Amino acid sequence: MDINCDLGESFGQYTIGNDSEVIRYIDSCNIACGFHAGDPMIMRKTIDLALQHDVKIGAHPGYPDLAGFGRRHMELDHEEINSILLYQIGALKAMTEALGGQLHHVKPHGALYNAAAKDFELAKQIAISIRSAGSNLIFVGQASSQMEKAAKDVGIPFFREAFADRRYLTNGLLVPRSQEGAVIHDTSQAMKQVLQIANQQTVTSIEGTEIPLSADTVCVHGDNANTLAFVIQLREKLNQSTV
Amino acid sequence: MDINCDLGESFGQYTIGNDSEVIRYIDSCNIACGFHAGDPMIMRKTIDLALQHDVKIGAHPGYPDLAGFGRRHMELDHEEINSILLYQIGALKAMTEALGGQLHHVKPHGALYNAAAKDFELAKQIAISIRSAGSNLIFVGQASSQMEKAAKDVGIPFFREAFADRRYLTNGLLVPRSQEGAVIHDTSQAMKQVLQIANQQTVTSIEGTEIPLSADTVCVHGDNANTLAFVIQLREKLNQSTV
Amino acid sequence: MDINCDLGESFGQYTIGNDSEVIRYIDSCNIACGFHAGDPMIMRKTIDLALQHDVKIGAHPGYPDLAGFGRRHMELDHEEINSILLYQIGALKAMTEALGGQLHHVKPHGALYNAAAKDFELAKQIAISIRSAGSNLIFVGQASSQMEKAAKDVGIPFFREAFADRRYLTNGLLVPRSQEGAVIHDTSQAMKQVLQIANQQTVTSIEGTEIPLSADTVCVHGDNANTLAFVIQLREKLNQSTV
Amino acid sequence: MDINCDLGESFGQYTIGNDSEVIRYIDSCNIACGFHAGDPMIMRKTIDLALQHDVKIGAHPGYPDLAGFGRRHMELDHEEINSILLYQIGALKAMTEALGGQLHHVKPHGALYNAAAKDFELAKQIAISIRSAGSNLIFVGQASSQMEKAAKDVGIPFFREAFADRRYLTNGLLVPRSQEGAVIHDTSQAMKQVLQIANQQTVTSIEGTEIPLSADTVCVHGDNANTLAFVIQLREKLNQSTV
Repeated sequence: MDINCDLGESFGQYTIGNDSEVIRYIDSCNIACGFHAGDPMIMRKTIDLALQHDVKIGAHPGYPDLAGFGRRHMELDHEEINSILLYQIGALKAMTEALGGQLHHVKPHGALYNAAAKDFELAKQIAISIRSAGSNLIFVGQASSQMEKAAKDVGIPFFREAFADRRYLTNGLLVPRSQEGAVIHDTSQAMKQVLQIANQQTVTSIEGTEIPLSADTVCVHGDNANTLAFVIQLREKLNQSTV
Repeated sequence: MDINCDLGESFGQYTIGNDSEVIRYIDSCNIACGFHAGDPMIMRKTIDLALQHDVKIGAHPGYPDLAGFGRRHMELDHEEINSILLYQIGALKAMTEALGGQLHHVKPHGALYNAAAKDFELAKQIAISIRSAGSNLIFVGQASSQMEKAAKDVGIPFFREAFADRRYLTNGLLVPRSQEGAVIHDTSQAMKQVLQIANQQTVTSIEGTEIPLSADTVCVHGDNANTLAFVIQLREKLNQSTV
Repeated sequence: MDINCDLGESFGQYTIGNDSEVIRYIDSCNIACGFHAGDPMIMRKTIDLALQHDVKIGAHPGYPDLAGFGRRHMELDHEEINSILLYQIGALKAMTEALGGQLHHVKPHGALYNAAAKDFELAKQIAISIRSAGSNLIFVGQASSQMEKAAKDVGIPFFREAFADRRYLTNGLLVPRSQEGAVIHDTSQAMKQVLQIANQQTVTSIEGTEIPLSADTVCVHGDNANTLAFVIQLREKLNQSTV
Repeated sequence: MDINCDLGESFGQYTIGNDSEVIRYIDSCNIACGFHAGDPMIMRKTIDLALQHDVKIGAHPGYPDLAGFGRRHMELDHEEINSILLYQIGALKAMTEALGGQLHHVKPHGALYNAAAKDFELAKQIAISIRSAGSNLIFVGQASSQMEKAAKDVGIPFFREAFADRRYLTNGLLVPRSQEGAVIHDTSQAMKQVLQIANQQTVTSIEGTEIPLSADTVCVHGDNANTLAFVIQLREKLNQSTV
């Protein structure tokens, strides 16, 4: 199973993340495109870093809200969604190609991702934007969500994303962050969940039921020493398993 | 001779220009890319408009300064210049291609254009950025300036731009705006200057000397009724002449 | 009855409104504070204009969304609402006092105004922010809305605002813009409505019922020739009436 | 001698500095006002922090350039300088007063500070802006620079600032950062320089000459463990000396 991480989230003099370390243990990265995080200089450096480490490059477009880091819902109509996605993906694509690389996928960020997981029409607009931004671009989104359905509907490839540190409901959706137990803070439990998804294609829901969950990629974070250690260990475990 | 105009300079609820009228009389347009003017929605509408009227589409990147409309000098190092140009050109290119068009050229905006006219190293960075943003992209810049020299040096096609409403010095550069007589306010004189450039490949400098000036394209504005009338008349005159 | 108008909504090179004309016919103005519209230069010029014409100066704070002109709902928690209001009001207040004037009132803008009309807790946060920004500052908001209730609750003066060109529901709220007949396009009908509010303290609802409506100020717009003519005529009519 | 530090330089999800630690060892702070760094939420939290620790509060206005952190020169005319200073100072002043504090001083940031140290007319515009933003506001700027001269000229109080980690020229100005030896990296040497300034009112220039230097406040940074240790030690040393 592919390991992905959100990178390039710094801005100007501001640094977020530990990109130069975590890049060594992942397969693909999602690079912020200057709307909720990142700027043209950071994008370029992050693309360079990914190319050096042979990590697949994805665009990680979000809402135009640097102050809120793209994590707040915004009321944008579908025409605006299409426009801001094409703009962001196009900017990252041109930079990637100028540096000799190839854009591999697109994964929406934050509040946009969460909204699209539940809203088929929004997810479809995202899929249409991705399709028009380049042939063969892969839509990376939550497994079993409206994004998966929309990608199929629009006819573009889709990578099903799973989460290491989030609990699932029996219906396959994530436990909302507002609910008790939504986030798995214990890294050994997070590791157990990822390996179960990777090796058995199932996950044990918060209600205790084992449900099917097929994923192509798992999202990790490497911001601090703890999470970096998790990524390193996960890389090793996944290399050992047959998947 | 080609007639070009800067379009797509509106932003959100703010409108600048008379794009839907002036588009009918020009050959190519330079579309703002969201840094000094324009936004993703405006860019999309302007590309649509250009495609409807079969007008060649160019990117018009500028400094990241909406408040100053890109007309104020900014101290950006060459790496940042490259990054912001690739970002802006890439965004417009992706949108243009998504709508079925093809990006034709790139013309720097405002203070960036003026700086590059005199600074070979800056002009060269712009030429390199344009080359890396897409093969066959044409650099549009001031005739006989450092931009022309840089395009040749980098090996990309260059369109020499002339101005209808600006006086020239005998050395071929523009009379600085700070100097008396820099701008031609009389439209009949502006028309006379364009036709002289178009038909005789010369211009009469502010000092009264006739100097050679070969141009591929002339820049016009159509913001108000007067300037729109000028564009309409210029279109007609150029159609009548053999060039 | 006081006539108010939103002014200072230009930004950089972008112009909205006809401030220097409409200022001659109004009693108080609401000046944008740089978040949804306006910038420090525009604010200063608009304050100067108001002082010249002896028009009362109010702050017109909005969401931080220049691209959306503050007309889109944003999910900001109450602490952030307080912070962005104090910031904007403080900036305008300091500029007004530096130019020898006195800040008179605060009127929230656009989506923030609409949300506060219905949401008592939000309206209360706005009232608290206004109170902490300066003693005696008047809260200007929709008559009979949650804003009026909140101002009373917090203990600050409130000016009840009525609208010339919007229809009312029998419950005293505005007909939502999404509904047929929400906006009065006929200026003679708009004039009739304002004079009825001013002279009889009633309005005829869209359902045809005459309901009580006491207002201290009426909001007008003077963007184009038609609306400016309306303002001029309204000024004259109100001067003739005894109120 | 007073110890000051630039605080509140975080933005949204981005953190810069170690404000909650360094605040314990300083006398006054300069809080970013949202243009080059900081945002309304951060400003509010930083004011709260300063009030809790009884640290004097200053506004730290800068150029409108978050991407460049206010460290790049911008071409703003004097009217715009006045407007952006009043705006930023006013915003911070209102928030400070709303939280029960009092604005004490204003210190320009970064490229604006550096430009004003050498340009009397610019320094004068800053002094005028400070004077109009509030009576008794102190201008904090480089000792012996054009800022000191301008404050005297305009008639406002001035605090002469010295630097712990920057070398001085024999003419009293700072060694430009572009020049070898401009920055003192050795903390024991930096400590020696501050104590010499505090106790003997002199500094030893990079050329080896002892020159007079009277300072009211010294600027420190506490971003990392090393610099925080320096601040703690400096606090102790200054408490021991009679000044």
